[in-house]
Amino acid sequence: MALFTFKATSKLLDHGMAVENSAACFMIIADEPKNMRGTDEGMNPVEMLLCALGSCQCITARFLAKSFGIALKEYRVELEGDLDPAGFMKGMEGVRPGYQQIRTKVFIKADAPEEKTREFAAFVKSRCPVGDCLTKGVAVSETCFIVSDGEAE
Amino acid sequence: MALFTFKATSKLLDHGMAVENSAACFMIIADEPKNMRGTDEGMNPVEMLLCALGSCQCITARFLAKSFGIALKEYRVELEGDLDPAGFMKGMEGVRPGYQQIRTKVFIKADAPEEKTREFAAFVKSRCPVGDCLTKGVAVSETCFIVSDGEAE
Repeated sequence: MALFTFKATSKLLDHGMAVENSAACFMIIADEPKNMRGTDEGMNPVEMLLCALGSCQCITARFLAKSFGIALKEYRVELEGDLDPAGFMKGMEGVRPGYQQIRTKVFIKADAPEEKTREFAAFVKSRCPVGDCLTKGVAVSETCFIVSDGEAE
Repeated sequence: MALFTFKATSKLLDHGMAVENSAACFMIIADEPKNMRGTDEGMNPVEMLLCALGSCQCITARFLAKSFGIALKEYRVELEGDLDPAGFMKGMEGVRPGYQQIRTKVFIKADAPEEKTREFAAFVKSRCPVGDCLTKGVAVSETCFIVSDGEAE
């Protein structure tokens, strides 16, 4: 199959920490709570990252259930990630800015024997695109453009 | 500083590919377009992942601009990620399910010399929590619970 390219745009709004994120024809706001200088208009980016992972597992499960021979009735993921704010806020040596660990609990109801259902959960984890990105890492390249005063965006 | 734990829950809804994602007091829907068996009610998880990365860069920039000695006026990120659907959909050998590469374009307007603004962009990239997770990878542990018929969720 050919490579498929997904796109998004994130734009810092003119107040606090609020960010408008657009992809396809959808928009979601990211923000921080007031104690992080935000205006609390949306979940923060590290929470959004957990949602991307959880929803990717859910959709992967729905997408692959039939071919795995399982009748999926319910699929829910609870996610937690631990982060030391000293990495992000203070740039403390030896402390990574991102999550040190992510833990997930997957709750599955399926018309299938328990063992097959557990095999399915492991199969979903191995095929989940966002999970693959997070556990194996992805190269992120950046090009920086300086916008001058008066220049159209 | 102590570790801080962020949480989210993702729940597959009872139609198509739609997923309800909750974190803090916010909810966002993930879905797939109709050609991917979805009902197109929200961006998909790999787009949400790009939004998590873009918004994290924006917030990191806003958060750190003052301490870097820069008056930030605008910050926008355009993101693209390439993915081969054969990895996710078919489990093709040697094809990863996730992004093979993510490219970002950062557009910055700041009251600062161009060189300092470029240094700031690199600084933001190095301190961005979601960027750190993606480029360096994170361990994701999973525990699977089988929900029986009639069992309360």
